Amino acid sequence: MSGTAQIGVTGLAVMGRNLARNFARNGFTVAVHNRTTAKTDALVKEFGDEGTFVAAHTPQEFVAALERPRRLVIMVKAGEPTDAVIREFAPLLEEGDVIIDGGNAHFEDTRRREKELRERGIHFVGVGISGGEEGALNGPSIMPGGSEQSYASLGPMLEKIAAVAEDGTPCTTHIGPDAAGHFVKMVHNGIEYADMQLIAEAYDLLRSVAGYSPAQIAETFRSWNTGRLDSYLIEITAEVLAHQDAATGKPFVDIVQDRAEQKGTGRWTVQIALDLGVPVSGIAEAVFARSLSGHADLREAARGLPGPSPAPLGQKEAAAFADRVEQALYASKIVSYTQGFHQIRAGSEAYDWGIDLGAVASIWRAGCIIRAAFLDRIRAAYDSRPDLTSLLSDQQFAQEIGATQDDWRGVVAEAVRQGVPTPGFAAALSYYDGLRADRLPAALTQGQRDFFGAHTYRRTDREGSFHTLWGGDRSETTAG
Amino acid sequence: MSGTAQIGVTGLAVMGRNLARNFARNGFTVAVHNRTTAKTDALVKEFGDEGTFVAAHTPQEFVAALERPRRLVIMVKAGEPTDAVIREFAPLLEEGDVIIDGGNAHFEDTRRREKELRERGIHFVGVGISGGEEGALNGPSIMPGGSEQSYASLGPMLEKIAAVAEDGTPCTTHIGPDAAGHFVKMVHNGIEYADMQLIAEAYDLLRSVAGYSPAQIAETFRSWNTGRLDSYLIEITAEVLAHQDAATGKPFVDIVQDRAEQKGTGRWTVQIALDLGVPVSGIAEAVFARSLSGHADLREAARGLPGPSPAPLGQKEAAAFADRVEQALYASKIVSYTQGFHQIRAGSEAYDWGIDLGAVASIWRAGCIIRAAFLDRIRAAYDSRPDLTSLLSDQQFAQEIGATQDDWRGVVAEAVRQGVPTPGFAAALSYYDGLRADRLPAALTQGQRDFFGAHTYRRTDREGSFHTLWGGDRSETTAG
Repeated sequence: MSGTAQIGVTGLAVMGRNLARNFARNGFTVAVHNRTTAKTDALVKEFGDEGTFVAAHTPQEFVAALERPRRLVIMVKAGEPTDAVIREFAPLLEEGDVIIDGGNAHFEDTRRREKELRERGIHFVGVGISGGEEGALNGPSIMPGGSEQSYASLGPMLEKIAAVAEDGTPCTTHIGPDAAGHFVKMVHNGIEYADMQLIAEAYDLLRSVAGYSPAQIAETFRSWNTGRLDSYLIEITAEVLAHQDAATGKPFVDIVQDRAEQKGTGRWTVQIALDLGVPVSGIAEAVFARSLSGHADLREAARGLPGPSPAPLGQKEAAAFADRVEQALYASKIVSYTQGFHQIRAGSEAYDWGIDLGAVASIWRAGCIIRAAFLDRIRAAYDSRPDLTSLLSDQQFAQEIGATQDDWRGVVAEAVRQGVPTPGFAAALSYYDGLRADRLPAALTQGQRDFFGAHTYRRTDREGSFHTLWGGDRSETTAG
Repeated sequence: MSGTAQIGVTGLAVMGRNLARNFARNGFTVAVHNRTTAKTDALVKEFGDEGTFVAAHTPQEFVAALERPRRLVIMVKAGEPTDAVIREFAPLLEEGDVIIDGGNAHFEDTRRREKELRERGIHFVGVGISGGEEGALNGPSIMPGGSEQSYASLGPMLEKIAAVAEDGTPCTTHIGPDAAGHFVKMVHNGIEYADMQLIAEAYDLLRSVAGYSPAQIAETFRSWNTGRLDSYLIEITAEVLAHQDAATGKPFVDIVQDRAEQKGTGRWTVQIALDLGVPVSGIAEAVFARSLSGHADLREAARGLPGPSPAPLGQKEAAAFADRVEQALYASKIVSYTQGFHQIRAGSEAYDWGIDLGAVASIWRAGCIIRAAFLDRIRAAYDSRPDLTSLLSDQQFAQEIGATQDDWRGVVAEAVRQGVPTPGFAAALSYYDGLRADRLPAALTQGQRDFFGAHTYRRTDREGSFHTLWGGDRSETTAG
């Protein structure tokens, strides 16, 4: 028996509900299911006029409502809840059916699930979805992994519900096999952490060093948003900073506790980057800055530590400083994306995903949290040179970041002198200076490792591994 | 049947062999075993006059040679090889016997093994051993986990073979249950990464900015080694820098490839710190600096990127600059240890290990790679206030780091201006400034998260979680 629904969504919390509505609004018949059936009925009651829904009250009803091959989207919490739903539905499915996981799963879970279900003839598609509630409803950026066969069946539907870039391209594409989609979504979130941290540092500098009020800083961000920094996060930063707390009349940002929370994808990004040997210092500093802010006990204990108190600048100097902060923010942003795209390339190579980096940049241009004009430039860089080693080796980005030099360095040096923490700006600059260095002090590190652990070293002038007899006559031996 | 050997060592590569000799030299009868029996015979032949060895050619012979309860040290590679040896020996053991893993195991593996063997009545002791080959032979720093009962049986022997601190204390103690020892050894290695990176940055600055030769820098490190930086790593840095390559007549450090390698414990430290929510930016930057140095392709592609070329200082200014670098190095070192000890405290709380932080500092004072006069001061800080929130809240360290302020900031600002990468110094300073900040821009981050993801925020003036209706009239609602 086969139903008429082209797609089914189980798990009707806000993201699942909005995704189901998005499908329905685009003309698809959508089977909807939720463990608590009241949610299913409420959805149909409230939004039934947006399209064609089939309310299913049991897993059996839900599966029966779907046309074959079945396409079943799971929108529940990552981790064990996702496994539980898979265990419940997989036995009801047939060869060729497609299970789609739209949650923020760890890509290693997705690899495991894909493999297990593939052996049973079921396609498992891990899909990264970015854009929050609003995106899910009106057009998110969608990052599907899984088999090519599954994309042939699912892709055209995703292309209809996805956000659309300015040039008319839908913000979805087949990222690559098995967990490629969830991996790319993870790095997207890592970059989002870095973007937010860099914005926070820019704000802090404008507040502490330039002496601007939140309202003035909102204006500054608004003007930045008309230039090369044009992006969703810059836009909403201006909104948040311009907002006044109704209860106190104070700037909203001043009545919010300064302890940032996090959910885990930023942390995963750094952990996986470490496994892949990719330096993602910008993302790491962003994650650490959030956890540091949350350690009330440590901060309390450090309250009296000495340091300079920034003396706000005069009006004219402040405006010039704000311009320099824009340069530093833009340069640091280039570095963050360089690191993030390096991680995607490394993941793609490690897992043989064949990810098209230009396509990734392309589908991030709209719908997702890090959407920005900037991403069209990254797309162009990779489209013209798909083998680009690093974003920093793109001529345009290299020129741009080169032009920021004096201002970028000036801002970090000023922050250091005035005692304003800028871990993101500083890490980005160190990465830049590290990459362009002729010689790094890593040679000394190798010498130390050989001294205390006989870990050997390579020479600049000969092939092979060598060890110096440090405890003996200090002659050099050829190692293994 | 029971043998006469008080301890057995299986796995006779250099670390295992030296550890066995260390036990024998200290009067213990040592059963020795290796898969390739030739190694066993070679050890006894070569070093038999150092003490009493019992050569065992089969697992059965090995186990039979041990007195009860048996104490059996595994010295093989971490990971699967360790599991393989446990699978081989465990069936031959009896209740109350003790298996000791002296490798660099991941602490989560140690937790798993300890639990499995505990259920079979066998004590499993994960032991961190630091000091390299030389330490294993002449006295390492030893970090045993496992049950109290196992320490009662094993501890007195470890206390005999361990390094001895200047005040006569042996450098070993019962760290805590199950994997506490391997966890502490992991963080030790993470701190070692950070120490080495900070030294590398100091060297780089003295070379590039002060314009010193490697020989001059060796002299500088030698003089630092007579002061508060007195430590094994500073000492061997001077040795490495003073060494001349025989083949070319050039400074050794100039003929070594500047690509640092790593084995994994630094990476693990950062990954686990992320799980625990502990900011260890200094360790992370050290790990990233090594991986960055190894990316030849990225570095090659970045060769032409613009930046300043440091102009070496005159002789007098150079000497003053070197003094400031010492201040920056010392201050950054305090931060590294603050982060590392925070991680140990967090691990101890998460796994209920009850680790005595003062005791950890105490057993790191000799034998291990990070041994330093400095550690006696950390010991004193925790001994006088075991509940110390953070090393930075110790009055003495706070005063000292306070006194470095101007120089520390000056050095980082100079590095930034001159284009010398100092990710470790800069991350340490950002951490310091972050902790002491009255208000962090994390409030803005929380506002953004509430804007795009309805993640809610807390207020400074009222209890509870709140959400602003950003897409609506921007009124505030009480959340969950």
